[in-house]
Amino acid sequence: MIKLDINCDMGEGFSRSRLQEDIGILKWITSVNIACGMHAGDPHMISSLIEAAMRYRVKIGAHPGYPDIQGFGRRSLNMSVREVYELVLYQVSALEGMTRALGGRLHHVKLHGALYNEAAERPEMAEAVVRAIVDLNEELSLYALSGSALVEIGLEYGLSVAEEVFADRAYLPNGRLAPRDLEGSVLISKEEQMEQTRQLVLTQQVKTVDGGSIELAADTLCVHNESPDVLPFLVELHKWAEQNEISIEPIQFA
Amino acid sequence: MIKLDINCDMGEGFSRSRLQEDIGILKWITSVNIACGMHAGDPHMISSLIEAAMRYRVKIGAHPGYPDIQGFGRRSLNMSVREVYELVLYQVSALEGMTRALGGRLHHVKLHGALYNEAAERPEMAEAVVRAIVDLNEELSLYALSGSALVEIGLEYGLSVAEEVFADRAYLPNGRLAPRDLEGSVLISKEEQMEQTRQLVLTQQVKTVDGGSIELAADTLCVHNESPDVLPFLVELHKWAEQNEISIEPIQFA
Amino acid sequence: MIKLDINCDMGEGFSRSRLQEDIGILKWITSVNIACGMHAGDPHMISSLIEAAMRYRVKIGAHPGYPDIQGFGRRSLNMSVREVYELVLYQVSALEGMTRALGGRLHHVKLHGALYNEAAERPEMAEAVVRAIVDLNEELSLYALSGSALVEIGLEYGLSVAEEVFADRAYLPNGRLAPRDLEGSVLISKEEQMEQTRQLVLTQQVKTVDGGSIELAADTLCVHNESPDVLPFLVELHKWAEQNEISIEPIQFA
Amino acid sequence: MIKLDINCDMGEGFSRSRLQEDIGILKWITSVNIACGMHAGDPHMISSLIEAAMRYRVKIGAHPGYPDIQGFGRRSLNMSVREVYELVLYQVSALEGMTRALGGRLHHVKLHGALYNEAAERPEMAEAVVRAIVDLNEELSLYALSGSALVEIGLEYGLSVAEEVFADRAYLPNGRLAPRDLEGSVLISKEEQMEQTRQLVLTQQVKTVDGGSIELAADTLCVHNESPDVLPFLVELHKWAEQNEISIEPIQFA
Repeated sequence: MIKLDINCDMGEGFSRSRLQEDIGILKWITSVNIACGMHAGDPHMISSLIEAAMRYRVKIGAHPGYPDIQGFGRRSLNMSVREVYELVLYQVSALEGMTRALGGRLHHVKLHGALYNEAAERPEMAEAVVRAIVDLNEELSLYALSGSALVEIGLEYGLSVAEEVFADRAYLPNGRLAPRDLEGSVLISKEEQMEQTRQLVLTQQVKTVDGGSIELAADTLCVHNESPDVLPFLVELHKWAEQNEISIEPIQFA
Repeated sequence: MIKLDINCDMGEGFSRSRLQEDIGILKWITSVNIACGMHAGDPHMISSLIEAAMRYRVKIGAHPGYPDIQGFGRRSLNMSVREVYELVLYQVSALEGMTRALGGRLHHVKLHGALYNEAAERPEMAEAVVRAIVDLNEELSLYALSGSALVEIGLEYGLSVAEEVFADRAYLPNGRLAPRDLEGSVLISKEEQMEQTRQLVLTQQVKTVDGGSIELAADTLCVHNESPDVLPFLVELHKWAEQNEISIEPIQFA
Repeated sequence: MIKLDINCDMGEGFSRSRLQEDIGILKWITSVNIACGMHAGDPHMISSLIEAAMRYRVKIGAHPGYPDIQGFGRRSLNMSVREVYELVLYQVSALEGMTRALGGRLHHVKLHGALYNEAAERPEMAEAVVRAIVDLNEELSLYALSGSALVEIGLEYGLSVAEEVFADRAYLPNGRLAPRDLEGSVLISKEEQMEQTRQLVLTQQVKTVDGGSIELAADTLCVHNESPDVLPFLVELHKWAEQNEISIEPIQFA
Repeated sequence: MIKLDINCDMGEGFSRSRLQEDIGILKWITSVNIACGMHAGDPHMISSLIEAAMRYRVKIGAHPGYPDIQGFGRRSLNMSVREVYELVLYQVSALEGMTRALGGRLHHVKLHGALYNEAAERPEMAEAVVRAIVDLNEELSLYALSGSALVEIGLEYGLSVAEEVFADRAYLPNGRLAPRDLEGSVLISKEEQMEQTRQLVLTQQVKTVDGGSIELAADTLCVHNESPDVLPFLVELHKWAEQNEISIEPIQFA
């Protein structure tokens, strides 16, 4: 039986913004990545989401990003490897302690925005991130772009790694995500998103922007809460999974 | 033999500001309170100070404050009790995880600015702070204004509490610190600071702004790194302690 | 013929969030209040909204708030009168210069959140705000809570003042807005909002939470873009205005 | 008679930090560049420095930087040309309005950190900066790295441009500043700083890190307030200027 984890980034605002919408999505997913206060998020949103995730038995992850509110963590900040280590360590530490104090357990780490893309590409960045996680708690797992340098380095250091694919992002022939400023980089329609998801889950392949197709492991599927169609998409995804005997459940590492 | 812990708030800038000055002071103190990124401080400063404190065998504390950079954490933000709990939990979690990952152990928590003063006065604020610490790690100790509500509530919840006094702040008759906007609230001269310190350490008493005198437990003495005379003061304090058989050493809880 | 100005706060996010939604609302309103970067907003959102407002011939206003991203400007920061003056001056100056450089003209100032409420109540705060505006440009007009101290002090200093009412906020018997944490303080349904608007515009009266009714001048009506029904409400409001020969147009001062 | 303008960046903290030290330096310089709130600075520091500069008859400039408090504006944020235009426009507008409201006149713009270096190198960045200034107020002058692309483009657009040299920074053979992470890039000793200043002012030449020498126009000399020796240096500079009939005075454009 095929298993599928569904993850979603949350808490990516300030004050109470998006909190109710985010909580409404929790029941349809199996892993949540909570913004840690640098590109977005604050202690109130974090603790509210941790408690909600515990109620819905959703796996709790930290979602660290660059300290750049205006740029929403989507631009590189040209940090040194040492600074990246410190930045990730700070954010994951905050989430780990908060989750523990509130009675839960932090399960994974997924990077945000430019940090996600850079650690996928550049081995020295990937290593800084992985070392921060391992030094804090080697039982944390790592969600990383399927097929990327970060997957490889996470495994080398002994972390459990989930390879992540996207329902709503177009792929380059090398397996990287098409940049957001490229036309067509975000799949808007629910139908396109479902089609890409079906292909990824059933065949572990995905079409690329040049018309070709590549292989990609698909341990966890990312959906985006800012997509206007996210709830209808999730409802349809669950129905399709049920019909095809795919089990939507949190990822289990051996 | 009288024992005296000396603590100092550090890391209260951004980027690399004050880092070298702060590290220069470490060898003269026994406890450091590191700003956690809300009123000041960032991951690079925090990790640099943790490592330096470990080199000098100085006890490492978290120094959480209100998220108010422009006001340096010195104005109240009118947060609810729940928000104060979340705010303190986030910051102490970040420091605890970072210290652990870097090979050390977080020792204590000392609040900053308006948060320090409010938790000293208002029992419901004190309780929010203490619960955050206990929920995270009940082995952490708490540095609190000598004689305050926070001391009492910390002890009720089973924390080890160090009662703190100040070398350079004037006292009100009720044992609270004279507000910073009151003339004479900060003792500028090294001589005045030494005199207040001698009285506090030797007699556990302090003069108040109305000319009277009150009793105050003095487990730990706070010095301020922004004081231009801080280094000469520390040198003189060590000399005086040696001459009077006072041992300057980290606080030991029973 | 009755005239009605409709205003809306915009740009209250970071990066590109809400920008497209905000621009979609511009065609239905006559005044926009643009967040200035302290409680929310950044230079990119500000300039994008200025240019969009110019295209739709909507009057451009500055919407200054407290520098508190986590609290969305909704908590008091206990600033001195001098700091409030500086805070408002900074933000309005930024908007005024940007609007001028982009070929437009800044029309008005409307405060945000806790600053709005405090300046409505406390004459010394109102005076700090009004002096900042007058010192910068006495041709700017001021949008202020109908019947408040700010209206009075703005007029005393010679500013053009528009008295503002709300379609979706419940009123206290003294004419102040019911606090947001009071149940029923925000009118959710389009029908309630339309009923309150009709009463305000046609009779210059409004029902209060105690069941009574008070008189309120209604120069400009505030709508909120975070309300899920804002577009249907605006469409219905325009239809109703047309049927009742009410002209929806920017306010004209004598 | 040789004339020399001396400028200094100020207000580069938050809250009240450095304010008194900064004001103490004002009497020894002729132009001040005030941080605008993005890499550092807040409305209270800005207005305090504007008023102090007016008392000491020092020319007031805006000192815009990247919105990166943790990095102190010293890392690139990879902004688009449009975003750089908006960023500079916002900050200079805030300073211009504040100065005007407080009874003064904004005189010049000098960029900070990574923005300063990028606009010196890359013509499209330089043009974005210059257009922001010209669109706001073409009577503002521009302080730019001597010999850089920004000087050229500022002149093309009709701005008055002062070519800036540094007393305490080492130069590369191409006239750019040696990067701060290069050893020897900052001249620490007062003697080295005086020697470089004398050479620049008297011969319009400077030694470079490779042992050579290049020509550089020297309209304005930058000193840094974080240098521990800044006051003794300024005292000696004034004495030397007097002995050599060099007039230390604000720059006059034809």
